[in-house]
Amino acid sequence: MKRQDDRHNARRRSLLGLGTVLTGAALLPAAARAAAGSHAGAFPKGFLWGAAIAGHQAEGDNVASDAWLLENIKPTEFREPSGAAVDHYRLYDQDIATLASLGLNTFRFSIEWARVEPVEGMFSTAALEHYRDVLLSCRKHGVKAMVSFNHFVTPAWFAARGGWEDPGSTQLYVRYCDKVARHLGELIDYATTFNEPNLPRLLFGIPGPLAGMADNPNMRAMLARAGQVAGTGKWSSWIFGDFAKIEAGLLRAHAAGYQAIKAVHPNLPVGFSIAIADDQAVDGGEAMVAKKRAIAYEPWFRAIGEHGDFIGVQTYTRELIGPDGVRPPPKDAKFTSSHMEYYPQALEATIRYTAKNVRVPVYVTENGVSTDDDAMRIAYIRTAVGGVANCLRDGIAVKGYIHWSLLDNFEWIFGFGPHFGLIAVDRATMKRSVNPSARFLGQIARANGLTA
Amino acid sequence: MKRQDDRHNARRRSLLGLGTVLTGAALLPAAARAAAGSHAGAFPKGFLWGAAIAGHQAEGDNVASDAWLLENIKPTEFREPSGAAVDHYRLYDQDIATLASLGLNTFRFSIEWARVEPVEGMFSTAALEHYRDVLLSCRKHGVKAMVSFNHFVTPAWFAARGGWEDPGSTQLYVRYCDKVARHLGELIDYATTFNEPNLPRLLFGIPGPLAGMADNPNMRAMLARAGQVAGTGKWSSWIFGDFAKIEAGLLRAHAAGYQAIKAVHPNLPVGFSIAIADDQAVDGGEAMVAKKRAIAYEPWFRAIGEHGDFIGVQTYTRELIGPDGVRPPPKDAKFTSSHMEYYPQALEATIRYTAKNVRVPVYVTENGVSTDDDAMRIAYIRTAVGGVANCLRDGIAVKGYIHWSLLDNFEWIFGFGPHFGLIAVDRATMKRSVNPSARFLGQIARANGLTA
Repeated sequence: MKRQDDRHNARRRSLLGLGTVLTGAALLPAAARAAAGSHAGAFPKGFLWGAAIAGHQAEGDNVASDAWLLENIKPTEFREPSGAAVDHYRLYDQDIATLASLGLNTFRFSIEWARVEPVEGMFSTAALEHYRDVLLSCRKHGVKAMVSFNHFVTPAWFAARGGWEDPGSTQLYVRYCDKVARHLGELIDYATTFNEPNLPRLLFGIPGPLAGMADNPNMRAMLARAGQVAGTGKWSSWIFGDFAKIEAGLLRAHAAGYQAIKAVHPNLPVGFSIAIADDQAVDGGEAMVAKKRAIAYEPWFRAIGEHGDFIGVQTYTRELIGPDGVRPPPKDAKFTSSHMEYYPQALEATIRYTAKNVRVPVYVTENGVSTDDDAMRIAYIRTAVGGVANCLRDGIAVKGYIHWSLLDNFEWIFGFGPHFGLIAVDRATMKRSVNPSARFLGQIARANGLTA
Repeated sequence: MKRQDDRHNARRRSLLGLGTVLTGAALLPAAARAAAGSHAGAFPKGFLWGAAIAGHQAEGDNVASDAWLLENIKPTEFREPSGAAVDHYRLYDQDIATLASLGLNTFRFSIEWARVEPVEGMFSTAALEHYRDVLLSCRKHGVKAMVSFNHFVTPAWFAARGGWEDPGSTQLYVRYCDKVARHLGELIDYATTFNEPNLPRLLFGIPGPLAGMADNPNMRAMLARAGQVAGTGKWSSWIFGDFAKIEAGLLRAHAAGYQAIKAVHPNLPVGFSIAIADDQAVDGGEAMVAKKRAIAYEPWFRAIGEHGDFIGVQTYTRELIGPDGVRPPPKDAKFTSSHMEYYPQALEATIRYTAKNVRVPVYVTENGVSTDDDAMRIAYIRTAVGGVANCLRDGIAVKGYIHWSLLDNFEWIFGFGPHFGLIAVDRATMKRSVNPSARFLGQIARANGLTA
């Protein structure tokens, strides 16, 4: 167990609570400015203030999904199974009501493909109508809905065909997007095709503690077992597979999915959100930072230029990069409960970097901190939102700040350990407790900016 | 396809819309008396008037279940998959509200084990809380809840271990019953361990058109494929397997499940419901009727005597039995849309037969007719309820009449073809339409008896 734990800790340090590895060069002395506070009035009318969850991480019992299967076989890369998650499939109306009551105006969530199409070609009216209910709840509570058509998870049958590596995946995704757009599009305010489709490259693309994970024996054994259980002898899903082929499939599927959604609802803004780190070069790491960016972000900047109405930025911390690859955080670093460096200044840097590289508006679609000390979350939000204000003051078209996450939830391979929620959840009873940080973000939203 | 269809039609004629094969000897000239009408006042105070559904048949997307797997493999014995069924998992509150508004006072439904324990040993708080919501909806609408802990369907993992044939099945069922009883028992008014556990014997136990189905090549191929897909090389579920071993397992599980529920809630009435036909001997078939009864009912009458507080009778039609086995219906018979003989007089006969053989109170827990002509359903209800009134008048302790079904639903191997619903459902939109027969049964319930 010791070796296993070491491996987990090493991975945790960098994996950052779920597809949120960060790296790169700090572009601006953001921390100093954010610490000065007083950014009231900096936020434009109509700015989105929100909180996010994702289907599989919150809903529970997503039984037909690839993730469910991987969580419940041996060996697995998952620390524990998602199970009932935080019962959001049942409690969505209560959760959205709470979000609205806090003062937030936007709810970001995802539709689970595995529920909508549990068997290839068989679409579930029940699941589609459920998501209509969720969208109607947003309307009822006066909350805008930002909907990811995919947030990592695919149906098990899809993974067992080869997932995004399968050339047929594009058409399958288009069919799904078309169904969802026709059934629900009129109630969606912002759509994204994918959540962090750049994650495979981000995790494995440059030398670092995670690069080896792309081909570790446990993962290979998990994939072999999954293919066996699924009966096809094949399996590719999320970050588990041939990551170059997965990325190519996601790029194709984004372009085609974008067009499918726009064909039904030409006026619906459609984009994607990417995982992006504040990549800071150290000890002459500039060339490696440039290499990382060319691998992990630039293909997606090009993609959003070709098919996209906005881009979502999802940032958690910074990553220090030397000439040899990812470096550990500094000795005096403060850590979050998921062993990431506590570094809320990262957000300002990644907004600036992204805005320089795309022509579409930028939304912060995820930003947050896993902690059991809610005061840390409040401090994190204060600094991060301060960074957004700095960007706005410099004329950058950032249009929303959506916190990860509304609720404590299933943080993928790390299970339920990391607590990112503005709202805590007791999984034994599924009772929700609103943290002070939730009220803090709600106050910012009501004031449309930091007031102190 | 022709041969396939013939086989299906032959099976349909006898399978009677789903586990409702009927056979036997008419005990009384019920039809004449029922036709005379005017049974007002015959029903005791507190008589249960209700309608039933079952989880898998109505809820939709019961993805972790054995039935779901069987429906979606090739070959299959199922005409079509259940898919979203009639979306009752989402719409339960609306459906229970409608039931109450009609004047009915009892809702019979089942808890899906595959939802509550989607992976062996992993119980879903989300699913348990969902069923709490359903039970609270019953309370809110002033309706009593009769809950089957199992209605045919088991988790896929359970079937892949060998289902009820596996000696470990009893303990697994006990653990499940204990969890459900602890979580929900205080809100349940009547519980049954099993729905029609005598069905395997009833279908295959005596010579007749169905006896051969127990071992047809398509079923064998389906079971082999299911075991392969599940990865264990084994599969036994519902009526598909070694029916003698399945029956033995169900008898053990009933006794142990009964004790598990009673251990938590000693005052909760617990029983089971059996499929029972009005078995009528023709051409000297008395010995064969006696043989059928000894095989298909008597073990269960003994079982309810040992562990049981009430018994549910589920009757749809009669079965004519000659010395050689089941005979086709008479030339002048009227048929329902599922090719059963229209014979509502059967209910009175089966209540009388059952009451003679058990000491516990009798509830009619299913009785109904599949038809696209709602006037036929009204006539059926009038005659059937008249038969109940006759029994009451003769001092038989029959305590409720629960119609099958509240909603059109998934009628197992026959798919969505047969329409048993007091309420019709358009599956494209999931819109409900209350049939006149629903109002007719509601009037009877409000008057606590037939008024004309």
